[in-house]
Amino acid sequence: MTNSRIAMPALYSRVMSAEDAAALIDDGTTVGMSGFTGAGYPKAVPVALAERINAEHDAGNPFQVRVWTGASTGPELDGALARANGIEFRLPYNSDPVAREKINRGEMAYFDMHLSQVAPMAWQGFLGPLDTAVIEVTGITASGDLIPSSSVGNNKTWLERAKRVILEVNSWQNPALEGMHDIYYGTHLPPHRVPIPLVRADDRIGQPLFQCDPEKIAAIVLTDIPDRNLPFTAPDAAAGAIAGHLLAFFEHEVAMGRMPPALLPLQSGVGNIANAVLTGLIDSRFEGMTSFTEVIQDGMLDLLDSGKLLMASATSFSLSPDAAARVNADMGRYRERMILRPQEISNHPELIRRLGCIAMNGLIEADIYGNVNSTHVMGSRIQNGIGGSGDFARNAFVSIFMTPSTAKGGAISAIVPQVSHVDHITQDVQIIVTEQGLADLRGLAPKQRAALIIEKCAHPDFRPMLEDYYARALVSSYGKHAPSLLTEALSWHQRYIDTGSMRF
Amino acid sequence: MTNSRIAMPALYSRVMSAEDAAALIDDGTTVGMSGFTGAGYPKAVPVALAERINAEHDAGNPFQVRVWTGASTGPELDGALARANGIEFRLPYNSDPVAREKINRGEMAYFDMHLSQVAPMAWQGFLGPLDTAVIEVTGITASGDLIPSSSVGNNKTWLERAKRVILEVNSWQNPALEGMHDIYYGTHLPPHRVPIPLVRADDRIGQPLFQCDPEKIAAIVLTDIPDRNLPFTAPDAAAGAIAGHLLAFFEHEVAMGRMPPALLPLQSGVGNIANAVLTGLIDSRFEGMTSFTEVIQDGMLDLLDSGKLLMASATSFSLSPDAAARVNADMGRYRERMILRPQEISNHPELIRRLGCIAMNGLIEADIYGNVNSTHVMGSRIQNGIGGSGDFARNAFVSIFMTPSTAKGGAISAIVPQVSHVDHITQDVQIIVTEQGLADLRGLAPKQRAALIIEKCAHPDFRPMLEDYYARALVSSYGKHAPSLLTEALSWHQRYIDTGSMRF
Repeated sequence: MTNSRIAMPALYSRVMSAEDAAALIDDGTTVGMSGFTGAGYPKAVPVALAERINAEHDAGNPFQVRVWTGASTGPELDGALARANGIEFRLPYNSDPVAREKINRGEMAYFDMHLSQVAPMAWQGFLGPLDTAVIEVTGITASGDLIPSSSVGNNKTWLERAKRVILEVNSWQNPALEGMHDIYYGTHLPPHRVPIPLVRADDRIGQPLFQCDPEKIAAIVLTDIPDRNLPFTAPDAAAGAIAGHLLAFFEHEVAMGRMPPALLPLQSGVGNIANAVLTGLIDSRFEGMTSFTEVIQDGMLDLLDSGKLLMASATSFSLSPDAAARVNADMGRYRERMILRPQEISNHPELIRRLGCIAMNGLIEADIYGNVNSTHVMGSRIQNGIGGSGDFARNAFVSIFMTPSTAKGGAISAIVPQVSHVDHITQDVQIIVTEQGLADLRGLAPKQRAALIIEKCAHPDFRPMLEDYYARALVSSYGKHAPSLLTEALSWHQRYIDTGSMRF
Repeated sequence: MTNSRIAMPALYSRVMSAEDAAALIDDGTTVGMSGFTGAGYPKAVPVALAERINAEHDAGNPFQVRVWTGASTGPELDGALARANGIEFRLPYNSDPVAREKINRGEMAYFDMHLSQVAPMAWQGFLGPLDTAVIEVTGITASGDLIPSSSVGNNKTWLERAKRVILEVNSWQNPALEGMHDIYYGTHLPPHRVPIPLVRADDRIGQPLFQCDPEKIAAIVLTDIPDRNLPFTAPDAAAGAIAGHLLAFFEHEVAMGRMPPALLPLQSGVGNIANAVLTGLIDSRFEGMTSFTEVIQDGMLDLLDSGKLLMASATSFSLSPDAAARVNADMGRYRERMILRPQEISNHPELIRRLGCIAMNGLIEADIYGNVNSTHVMGSRIQNGIGGSGDFARNAFVSIFMTPSTAKGGAISAIVPQVSHVDHITQDVQIIVTEQGLADLRGLAPKQRAALIIEKCAHPDFRPMLEDYYARALVSSYGKHAPSLLTEALSWHQRYIDTGSMRF
């Protein structure tokens, strides 16, 4: 393996065990790791680091690190380190259940960030120094350049900013990934920033490999471990209905001349409903589509295979095991129709606005005025994080949020009088769609939005409760621009906490 | 006057009275008017239109229009039309007290928008057709081009989109304004958008005049009426203290190497505190500054005069009568150091991110986690609107919000357990500063932010109440990531409604 994946002999001497590499990481330091939506994260060093932390803790010694990544990783990273109480501070996104529980018990500091801002803010310096980068790569070239893995995330920035670099060379990753990536080296801090020269989703503006000063490479660990590829559950009836409403909306916009027949570059959040929409597009009459998004998931792959999607631009894969096997078996062909970019480019406001993306994201709850909560359950418990949804929603050509109208077997309404936490303000929420219907909120004032959201999106079991609340707010509210009853606005959430249901 | 301001004789025949021009506007139609922060708005036709509406209403006939502008206007526009019950729907910003009262009584639909999005959304088409543009200009050239007035706003778009154009040629506006403006004609709808070629605040990328098809010009009304220039109140002690905290922060950032010695392009909201900060910069050691902002107000003018600000880029003036007289008396010189651009450019996310603006905006209230409410009093009553604050806050190099720690003579705390409405999410709020102190929230997790905001920003009279709330939330909250007590989160606002004070 050494010979086939590490083509620079001067680096052979840096190959060591994960344990020896983990020993290079000190207590209290900051570690920038690769990884985005369970792809391309280091899988051996974090496990060894967690073992080391456990040993230090057993010996009565403190040991915690600050962990920066691209987005979510896998159980070998966030799970192992959180279980070991090894993470003092975490950014910018987490979906690991063990880490989530720590965060929500108040035992881990979590800084939930816009994904486009991570790299520039790391350069700004207020986040502090980056001591060590731990980056999974597919291989190292003869000149010491690094072949990226199945995600790009913030790896370029971590490699540049870190004092010391630890590489995991993962031979599970297909060497034919080489050439798929487009690593843009033109970003700067102001006042030196210039236009980013990307005008189409399929433009390549960078280079296929990471640069890295070989002197900084302190350790190379060889692995052969698959990404965290989780099976997708088949779309249920609600997801199918949501996809149907959205496709009808797209048809209508094209018919009205407000969208081109090939639509506009698609951004699609991760998950079951997003997948259903992408699958639905296979049977649509739209041709020549592109995507400019964060992740390539199963539905995107199917859409590529159908020939209707010409190119998928993202920063990472997020595939089921079956889909990952399909991509790996045919990487040479897929490489021509996929581009993985740094997340500061995949999510860049400049590019999202220029391309005019169709943004499709999930939510936890929306209120009758169209404010969206994507992150906090009952206002205080974080689920995952805002991720890239804010980058896309504010800059999109049209910003769509989609959700089943209820959760927890009908105990929770996704439409509430007032959201318990706001991630997306009404200005950034143009379409809300549930299995009940689609509310086109564009150009509407608050009371027009409220009537439409209650009518189109609320579940029939909760609609009368919302109508009752809204009717009383129209009478008794302090102001009548966006009527509310402050004593009841968050009462549905409290009722859920108290009784396990938002129903009366 | 006809000869000196209208250099195209073919247009002489279109000169008519404001009453005759207003008669061209039909009930139920949409009118796009010029105007931004009380500068450059039409001053005769709206008054005549209001009189016509009153007459129609007196005769028992319905008559209302939909009004689009740049931002706020003056009493002759929003005030007169709102008083006549003449506005069915208004976008994107209002600060007129008569219109505000109508909106908050539920009698006028108001669509409060990100100012950068107005022009592109008007092009997208979902806002409906634009029937008439009513645009104040400084003059008309021999070839029929229009010399812009004291604001640019959305005038380029209104002139292009409207079926019919009514011009007010205002001889109060200084003809030496010609050459100050930079009207960029390179915007498009996707998929045809390209990079905007502006890399410094002082770049000129467009042309000084508006194009307008002379065939569309249905009426020209001659006026000689000043802009709504309101005197600034002198900064009080709180404003001075806020400015002091901010200047110390800038000094610190420069000392840490995190900002250049000339700072970065300044964006400054309108008002007393913003003005105090700009005035404070005159006595600072920063040299060679620029601004990239919405409006040029008195403090910006003083900073220009001091020689420390090299160039002010904005979309409008917002001056006191004295300052307006100063600018008018020396327009030829100021023209070289000021640029007025369309608001879709002055507020463009692409440019704000590229330039790395220092965004400084006011707020109504912030909560202990750093969510900011800029618009709604007690959650339901709109004050003005979000304006450009969202364009700047999300894309700035550093996003600063500033406010006195109390309002209404101490009855209201600007720091509350939970804001009653959210305009700026914690990810977009990096610095909060009151006269009490400055909280640098960059890179902090929620509980770290809460401790700092309570300590640094809250008024001593409210600090113990916040500490008490937060201490109990830490114990009893559903989740401990961002602890809250849902039954109390909005109780301070309800107490104010019930008793006139947030105090116990």
